[in-house]
Amino acid sequence: MTHLKYARVMRTITRVPGFSAGSADAGLRRQPALDVALIVSDRPCTAAGVFTTNRVRAAPVLLDEARLRDTVEGYRAVLINAGCANACTGEQGMRNAAESAAWVGKALGCAPESVLVMSTGVIGTQLPMDRLQPGISAAARVLDPEGWHDASRAILTTDTQPKRARALHEGAVIAGIAKGAGMIAPNMATMLALVVTSAAVPPPLLDQALREAVAHSFNRIVVDGDMSTNDTVLVLANGASRVQVTPETLPAFTLKLTAVCVALAQAVVRDAEGATQFITLEITGAPDVASARQIGHTIATSPLVKTAFYGGDANWGRILAAAGRAGIALDPDRLALWYDDLQLVAAGAPLDYDEALANRIAGQSEVTVRLDLGLGEAAATIWTCDLSHDYVSINGHYRT
Amino acid sequence: MTHLKYARVMRTITRVPGFSAGSADAGLRRQPALDVALIVSDRPCTAAGVFTTNRVRAAPVLLDEARLRDTVEGYRAVLINAGCANACTGEQGMRNAAESAAWVGKALGCAPESVLVMSTGVIGTQLPMDRLQPGISAAARVLDPEGWHDASRAILTTDTQPKRARALHEGAVIAGIAKGAGMIAPNMATMLALVVTSAAVPPPLLDQALREAVAHSFNRIVVDGDMSTNDTVLVLANGASRVQVTPETLPAFTLKLTAVCVALAQAVVRDAEGATQFITLEITGAPDVASARQIGHTIATSPLVKTAFYGGDANWGRILAAAGRAGIALDPDRLALWYDDLQLVAAGAPLDYDEALANRIAGQSEVTVRLDLGLGEAAATIWTCDLSHDYVSINGHYRT
Repeated sequence: MTHLKYARVMRTITRVPGFSAGSADAGLRRQPALDVALIVSDRPCTAAGVFTTNRVRAAPVLLDEARLRDTVEGYRAVLINAGCANACTGEQGMRNAAESAAWVGKALGCAPESVLVMSTGVIGTQLPMDRLQPGISAAARVLDPEGWHDASRAILTTDTQPKRARALHEGAVIAGIAKGAGMIAPNMATMLALVVTSAAVPPPLLDQALREAVAHSFNRIVVDGDMSTNDTVLVLANGASRVQVTPETLPAFTLKLTAVCVALAQAVVRDAEGATQFITLEITGAPDVASARQIGHTIATSPLVKTAFYGGDANWGRILAAAGRAGIALDPDRLALWYDDLQLVAAGAPLDYDEALANRIAGQSEVTVRLDLGLGEAAATIWTCDLSHDYVSINGHYRT
Repeated sequence: MTHLKYARVMRTITRVPGFSAGSADAGLRRQPALDVALIVSDRPCTAAGVFTTNRVRAAPVLLDEARLRDTVEGYRAVLINAGCANACTGEQGMRNAAESAAWVGKALGCAPESVLVMSTGVIGTQLPMDRLQPGISAAARVLDPEGWHDASRAILTTDTQPKRARALHEGAVIAGIAKGAGMIAPNMATMLALVVTSAAVPPPLLDQALREAVAHSFNRIVVDGDMSTNDTVLVLANGASRVQVTPETLPAFTLKLTAVCVALAQAVVRDAEGATQFITLEITGAPDVASARQIGHTIATSPLVKTAFYGGDANWGRILAAAGRAGIALDPDRLALWYDDLQLVAAGAPLDYDEALANRIAGQSEVTVRLDLGLGEAAATIWTCDLSHDYVSINGHYRT
């Protein structure tokens, strides 16, 4: 993915050939706001999905997984609701997920099995089906090829900004929307993302491209180390642009899909609950990529590291201490550390650096920390954020 | 350790036969306060230690480990300083640790190798040796059999309360002091503890007793999941009470030693940085103890769980979600959850419980959460705390 920076990504979505989007306020939130989004293709799509690795999986995750196991072709629509995660809801939750998909099928005149569903919001409460049904009808009535802006807003929870990204592959559009602001960790998060493309992509290639894209994007972000019951990334390809992805063009398509996913993933970190900083952790000189990622993840989930950044305190000892407990055999005497271009540590001990400058960098809204392990050639990048008073406020009173 | 509750523990230390303690203000902190403590035995002690598993280990940890590898007998004193952790300090840090031990030996007229050292404070700065030397002399001048109160205060950093505990074994005293308020995780923490006993305990028995005591105390507490470069628990036994611990009486001695360590460990959690709540997590119905501990640890380190408690929000879905990502093969449909005596979840789905009552319990200063996995007979208890605005304030501005 070294060429990723050359992939141009735009932050708006106008039209994606063959797709339309409709949104409605079904009254699922405490305040009036759009909370249901319906994304529809005018022709059948191939599809692929990546789901949370949490053992506690929400009903919509179980439903989509089962459908994609049955078939990866013929999909027509995705229903997304905010306000209720439909997680820890037992048999009733499974029935509600299937019934909401059936309502979408009825409204669109397509098979109930051609509909996938995603939910986000509070865990442990049942979907208010009496309100969801008219919401689905209302969303279906306002389907619009330019309905992406509203759809990207309807799926948010504690997010403050909608998250959209778009790129082109040989003239076909690849466009995605996402939500997520907390509970973000490698291997997914309270993270929903839907990517659609007007390219025609055979299912095995679509699946392969999505898995590589997710590995380099959504699985590289950390907000708080929590992993959700609902994490889902879906991609639908409808072929309306008559651009065919083949094994030969798969790398180019994957690159663009990855670029869209990276843009969405970084937008999630930038909008993380209470975050005031976007922190890029580069772990270099690692014996292998897995070790580099493990150390990056441990640093990114350390409350002591995150609060030090929030305080504008170049307390680099906490970074070394976090690296040291990551379970990786590192040699403390080979560690080197940089904040942006300022080197603070060499051979495991502090240099005579400018501490005021280091603190200034630590407090920047964007900061890159590089930790070199001095052991090998492997590297990994993790994107994360600081831990602020607002994170505590938001999560201490989410439901109340 | 089922009989632990019958072991009586007191929170004060008056005298421990053969031991004395002296403290001084060496100017290692930003504000004037005691920052050096010297604990001395009038006769040689057997000793045992448990140290951080962090790969980045402070100089005093490396020094003590090396000394205890050489010999576990003949120890006379422990020097503890606050204000500087002497971690990530390279060769100079190792020389400084050894030299400070030598200064203690000179002041007491004993071999430098009979002295152990512990440090806590900021990582990555060298010990100010010009101030430490007169501080050691001053502490040695005020050695007092009743000097425990001052010593327990001299070793604190962000702690708000000194931590002391004492129990009796066949008339011999077991007494300990500890510091620690953040960076607390299973397998130790920024946690220093020194336990002394006037019993005579052969080194292999002392080591065995300490390891068991630590497993049931300091390794069961979680504040923020961070693990320090300096974590150390030392025990010294001087035999001044003429009570001999034998293989036959070892279980009784271990029980009392464990009770002292549990009291110190719980005091650390109660005094955790910014904590407003003491939370007991009981994981029951587990296939094995390791799985129960792993799930307990994952819940205890979840920022979403910790902030929900802080907010007095019985957001139990976050507990199930944390359990689900612990890497243990659990069955979501068998989970049951209680807050104190109120059952919220059965068979993985919410009961029709009193939500106002649940929120009230979630906001209590002491709360017990029991998660039953429904898989087996094993159980584990973890003690932890909430995550508050003050935690962020304290750790965002620790050095500044």
